[in-house]
Amino acid sequence: MQPLLLKIRKDKVFDANSSTWKVSSSLPIEYAVVERSGFFFQPDYDESIFGQKSDDGMTRRLIVIDHIVAKYFGDTIKSYFSRNDIHVEFLTLTADEELKVADTVFSVLNKIIDLKLQRRSEPIIAIGGGVLLDIVGLAASLYRRGTPYVRVPTTLVGLIDAGIGIKTGVNYDTHKNRIGTYYSPKSVLLDATFLSTLDERHLRNGMAEILKMALIKDADLFSLLEESAHQIVDDKLQSHPHSQAIMRHSIQSMLEELEKNLWEKDLERLVDFGHTFSPTIEMKALPELLHGEAVAIDMAICIIIAHGRKLLTNDEMDRIFQVYKALGLPIFHSSCEIKVLCDALDDATSHRDGLQRVPLPKGIGEGIFVHDISEQEIKDAVMVLKEKAL
Amino acid sequence: MQPLLLKIRKDKVFDANSSTWKVSSSLPIEYAVVERSGFFFQPDYDESIFGQKSDDGMTRRLIVIDHIVAKYFGDTIKSYFSRNDIHVEFLTLTADEELKVADTVFSVLNKIIDLKLQRRSEPIIAIGGGVLLDIVGLAASLYRRGTPYVRVPTTLVGLIDAGIGIKTGVNYDTHKNRIGTYYSPKSVLLDATFLSTLDERHLRNGMAEILKMALIKDADLFSLLEESAHQIVDDKLQSHPHSQAIMRHSIQSMLEELEKNLWEKDLERLVDFGHTFSPTIEMKALPELLHGEAVAIDMAICIIIAHGRKLLTNDEMDRIFQVYKALGLPIFHSSCEIKVLCDALDDATSHRDGLQRVPLPKGIGEGIFVHDISEQEIKDAVMVLKEKAL
Repeated sequence: MQPLLLKIRKDKVFDANSSTWKVSSSLPIEYAVVERSGFFFQPDYDESIFGQKSDDGMTRRLIVIDHIVAKYFGDTIKSYFSRNDIHVEFLTLTADEELKVADTVFSVLNKIIDLKLQRRSEPIIAIGGGVLLDIVGLAASLYRRGTPYVRVPTTLVGLIDAGIGIKTGVNYDTHKNRIGTYYSPKSVLLDATFLSTLDERHLRNGMAEILKMALIKDADLFSLLEESAHQIVDDKLQSHPHSQAIMRHSIQSMLEELEKNLWEKDLERLVDFGHTFSPTIEMKALPELLHGEAVAIDMAICIIIAHGRKLLTNDEMDRIFQVYKALGLPIFHSSCEIKVLCDALDDATSHRDGLQRVPLPKGIGEGIFVHDISEQEIKDAVMVLKEKAL
Repeated sequence: MQPLLLKIRKDKVFDANSSTWKVSSSLPIEYAVVERSGFFFQPDYDESIFGQKSDDGMTRRLIVIDHIVAKYFGDTIKSYFSRNDIHVEFLTLTADEELKVADTVFSVLNKIIDLKLQRRSEPIIAIGGGVLLDIVGLAASLYRRGTPYVRVPTTLVGLIDAGIGIKTGVNYDTHKNRIGTYYSPKSVLLDATFLSTLDERHLRNGMAEILKMALIKDADLFSLLEESAHQIVDDKLQSHPHSQAIMRHSIQSMLEELEKNLWEKDLERLVDFGHTFSPTIEMKALPELLHGEAVAIDMAICIIIAHGRKLLTNDEMDRIFQVYKALGLPIFHSSCEIKVLCDALDDATSHRDGLQRVPLPKGIGEGIFVHDISEQEIKDAVMVLKEKAL
């Protein structure tokens, strides 16, 4: 036989000693974020959210659900599926920041493997707060290199922030979200009814992320908060005239920021406002501070720094801290030693690949990025906040 | 203040009770597969493969390397980097199928976290067989939701199959590659020099994957094997006139199949030929069978079934088993009980989302998919192979 000629593709280069192939492709992502109140009380099954029923009449779904949510809504959810002839397996999880670890991911994986879920056609349904969604999302992204899953956030942070993107993850050692994946959900269901049983502290916790979005991107949202912050918290975003607008503004702004940068190729992210010092503060203060509380403290530091840099006027700063007060958000915590904050900035800088890239508000409703926050600025900010907090 | 009008984007639908956002985006993937012999003996550092040097002159790389490869090539590799002023941290791993578990991934993650690798600019370099590359790939995909890494396969399976795609993973329980991710490397370096120290059994192991490609997709490659199978193995693909053509044919065919289906959206994959029964056989027989040996046995079963279905003539079947013999590949193993094989088919069916989708050769160099392999066909095939193997 004669030596064969390779069927060389145009984009391949071969020579005697070296050859190079370029592999290129593109992964399309699409998912719907559906906001609908009282979803599980409606009669009919929604295939667009929870996936097609199987032809053999043996449709089943694994639902991983927060144990408190299960207490209040478990029967309603079970009944939604059973009246639609879908067999449901419940896995109840206690999911808080301290249980946001690899072992919890493996407990979900064990259940998935026990059930031998089909790789593509039996979406896992995650119902709970941001922590639970991140854990289940990571498990779903790992099982057979990715099985579909649906996010149903039940906390305010989940509904307007953690629940609607594609990030999954768990803490590792003392490092927040140090391991995880980008893995888009099949769909996201937002049902504000879940907030009705949320305790006030967790509601305030979510308001911190809404305030973040207002300060850095959405002046209209800030005005809505100024008008109604106190009542909104009391009402748990159920029936106040501004509730829906506040929710939709937050979600809209968040999705605008996420969609153009789903994989964080661009490390200058406005939504990182409040997320420079807070990952370290939160882990350091565990279990004392909730995520949104740590974010609020981080934002407070940044607000003082921004004010020091004349990015915010006195008046703007006062208005912001008025809203803090109405929302009942903290501006300081004893764990915020200078050394801790400097370490946090170092770690954020490493996470942002060597540049600080800290978003600061410029006026209310806009943000810029700075790379030169100094230890002295941090010290000064802490001093101001310590005093304010008294 | 008047109630605000939402800035509604065209693709968003809002009404009083429900609103839907569609998030859509696309993740572009591109990586180069560079084949170059004696790479680490060349004087200059190649930034296109191992990443840019940092401006501060403090460039460092974490190299995760198989302990046997380190013994033979460690000094050469270290010297390549040190003469280019790059500080290298070696993490030496023993990576075999039994150590392809989550704990090994965590040992790599621990090292990455200890070193506080920058998120985007300090690619991890993985040098070893397919198992090591899969482990390091998974760790890289999880650290901060993904840090770049370079694959440098050193075994034949790695060079022409496991090393050049985007799949990562580890075994879980008795399930092969049950957890993992799709995560593309920054680049892949193929240097056949590494094969010179590979023991013969591992070389034969890789030849099984080359034979797979030949049977299901590339008749020219099969002819090359028919002509030179025995000598190629003796020569370890170093200097035989067919060596380079065999390697390039295999890589080209593999990349053609991978590139159009990187995320396995299409579950009918020709490259799954030999991978229906083998994951279960391999795990069952651990540590007796190597991956390629299990693949060879799986292919043998499928060849008999294909022959039974008149997809292969007597002559074609004989030619194929001649090549098996010349390559020294097994056609049977005592672990292949009927029950084990039926379970394996069930599990593959579940992995392929409910349909068998078993690739069978149709003549030599082409494949089709079947969904109706019966227990009787498996029994018959085993009977034939048991006899042949005597």
